[in-house]
Amino acid sequence: MTEHGQQLTTDAPQRKRERLARAALSRLMEPQDAAGLALVKAAGAVDGLKIATGELAPGPGLEQEVASLLVDSGVSNPGVGLAAALRRWAPRIPDLAPERDLATMQRLGGRMVIPGDPLWPVQLADLGLHEPLCLWWRGHEVEFPPVKRVVALVGSRDSTSYGASVTGDFAYGLGQRGCTVVSGGAYGIDAHAHRGALAGGTNNMPTIAVMAGGVDRYYPSGNEDLLRAVANQGAVIGEVPPGSAPTRYRFLQRNRIIAALAAVTVVVEARWRSGALNTAHHAESIGRAVAAVPGSIHSANSAGCHRLLRDGGAVCVTDVGEIAELAGSSGEGLVEDKETAASDHDGLTLEDLILLDALPVRSTSSVEKLAVVAGLSPESVRAGLGRLGLLGLAVSVSGAWKRSGKRF
Amino acid sequence: MTEHGQQLTTDAPQRKRERLARAALSRLMEPQDAAGLALVKAAGAVDGLKIATGELAPGPGLEQEVASLLVDSGVSNPGVGLAAALRRWAPRIPDLAPERDLATMQRLGGRMVIPGDPLWPVQLADLGLHEPLCLWWRGHEVEFPPVKRVVALVGSRDSTSYGASVTGDFAYGLGQRGCTVVSGGAYGIDAHAHRGALAGGTNNMPTIAVMAGGVDRYYPSGNEDLLRAVANQGAVIGEVPPGSAPTRYRFLQRNRIIAALAAVTVVVEARWRSGALNTAHHAESIGRAVAAVPGSIHSANSAGCHRLLRDGGAVCVTDVGEIAELAGSSGEGLVEDKETAASDHDGLTLEDLILLDALPVRSTSSVEKLAVVAGLSPESVRAGLGRLGLLGLAVSVSGAWKRSGKRF
Repeated sequence: MTEHGQQLTTDAPQRKRERLARAALSRLMEPQDAAGLALVKAAGAVDGLKIATGELAPGPGLEQEVASLLVDSGVSNPGVGLAAALRRWAPRIPDLAPERDLATMQRLGGRMVIPGDPLWPVQLADLGLHEPLCLWWRGHEVEFPPVKRVVALVGSRDSTSYGASVTGDFAYGLGQRGCTVVSGGAYGIDAHAHRGALAGGTNNMPTIAVMAGGVDRYYPSGNEDLLRAVANQGAVIGEVPPGSAPTRYRFLQRNRIIAALAAVTVVVEARWRSGALNTAHHAESIGRAVAAVPGSIHSANSAGCHRLLRDGGAVCVTDVGEIAELAGSSGEGLVEDKETAASDHDGLTLEDLILLDALPVRSTSSVEKLAVVAGLSPESVRAGLGRLGLLGLAVSVSGAWKRSGKRF
Repeated sequence: MTEHGQQLTTDAPQRKRERLARAALSRLMEPQDAAGLALVKAAGAVDGLKIATGELAPGPGLEQEVASLLVDSGVSNPGVGLAAALRRWAPRIPDLAPERDLATMQRLGGRMVIPGDPLWPVQLADLGLHEPLCLWWRGHEVEFPPVKRVVALVGSRDSTSYGASVTGDFAYGLGQRGCTVVSGGAYGIDAHAHRGALAGGTNNMPTIAVMAGGVDRYYPSGNEDLLRAVANQGAVIGEVPPGSAPTRYRFLQRNRIIAALAAVTVVVEARWRSGALNTAHHAESIGRAVAAVPGSIHSANSAGCHRLLRDGGAVCVTDVGEIAELAGSSGEGLVEDKETAASDHDGLTLEDLILLDALPVRSTSSVEKLAVVAGLSPESVRAGLGRLGLLGLAVSVSGAWKRSGKRF
């Protein structure tokens, strides 16, 4: 795979069959079709497609293997067995035309990538059985960034000016640090995330939009120009073939890809119920970090973020450094040096702090008087005054003591 | 102890000696003087005072006991042994006048309470060795509310309008639920907490201000009227005797009392470094719940709250119900019924959700066409349409199907 969109012609024959089979399977099955994914895992994509289309009969051994893969991955719905799946897939068989779909992508300057391709994001393997069969891909052809350099910024479509400004700042800042920003290409937070990353981006894949429908269409249409820019500088990707509608079900499944691509999913603004929370839960379920941005308790658009913080699943983040740290790309002075704002008396013992309190600011005081006021023995007062003097916090004026002029 | 401020005259002789001794000890020692508190624990207040003032010599057995009490409570500073403590206390001995201090309180309509008094907050026992020796008390004389009905609202002196409004709402709402609001009587968040609780309070101790200095003086003076109202309807209390200045050290120690009185300490607004965080850490160290109110990441006055949320010590709270739940006074419909906002499709299986997505809104579709669009077998489509029909989400029109008019 060297030339833009030329995999099909340059693939080895076996690779080409695998690619065509996955292209067909991605049209036959809805995303996250557990039985179908188990079938591919058990029989491989090429034979899996033959079984799915009735060209090959599944042996009892295979049915058994699919069933146990489903059990292993926690699928317990009785309707998901292979027999039910075959009935489910049958009506779509006449529509299969993988060569046509691949040609469509090529015409659009895109391609389809499958596990093993250099562009394939290896972090998707963490989805286990639910790893997508393939990704339909428009955009830049470079090596996919490692998970530690990828951050998902997600949130409501109806963002507030607060959400817009925070998202823009974060995306720009992450771009400046060489991170890739993943989002869903929607209005609101998603759009601000892509825009900020395009503006601030410093690596060769500043931002990625993961679509719920086919990537032949830039959806929603109001974001067409933005998504075109994302494809030109980064990538617009999706797991369903060209021409597929972005249904609600596909939106929910799409969210698992956003979560799995990134080391951390940051929810910037979300209502009490929001698709962004679904992305956060996907992230949590595969052990990725989830972060939420706090906001006013009077803003309904932050209620979902506060819910995530309250339920304990999310880390509270307030700046890019904290996000980068969470993503594991720290160690480069990413966390701001807030601790250095410590005031002068931070290192003092309790006794010295009491003594400091007792020291007059304008007049002076004797050791004996200080012992009464501070409730310390005269020896302790003398020793403490010595330490405070060394720290520049106390000063002796003809045998009596006062605070030094130093602010604290 | 029945009449307002009359303990001294009505106490049994033993109780009177105990009270006088604790009054004197509270002047001799700074708050949280570990060696002094260990001495009182080992020898009792009456003999402890005699030892502290040199009237009785401590035997080697007692010194040993004090030392082991200090080790048990985690005190490892070598300067805190009994010998060093005796030297520390000596300069203050001439100032001791417990009868005068008690008389001062009586003149102000107040009293001093000690462990065992009906007014004594039993929850302070959770401070272990650091339980105050006594509380100087101005205000209402009623039984102290149980810890589950007490909430501390704390925060910065330089509160924003956001902090003021949140604090006022929370304090009022907690008062309405019969909770007692504890705070520190300072400007800003503290003052808004007391005011809100005075306005909303429904129990006979709506709010309590814990002072760092002597309660003979309402401090700061700008809050004098407010603190007078707090004393009239609730209580203004402190562990240091009348005439004691509110030093910084005493502020920090005072915070442990606020934390120990309440089941939950809520930090409403706090800068990155703030005394309110100190109160939160006291609460955490004795196993009390800590909560923080989120705010704009652009507000420096919320940075301390976000720090608490980020470091994992605090629960994110956004309304009174969540605070009350945290305080353990739930079970009275305290948590708002946010879950009922669920949309109609929440209970659907994935297959039914896919099918619902496939159903046209305006035109109708056949079972066969739906099977292709949804990627489901015709049998699954028929069964699913039946379920969606029962839920009012799908409707059959002369043998074909569409979504019902119901919004979802």
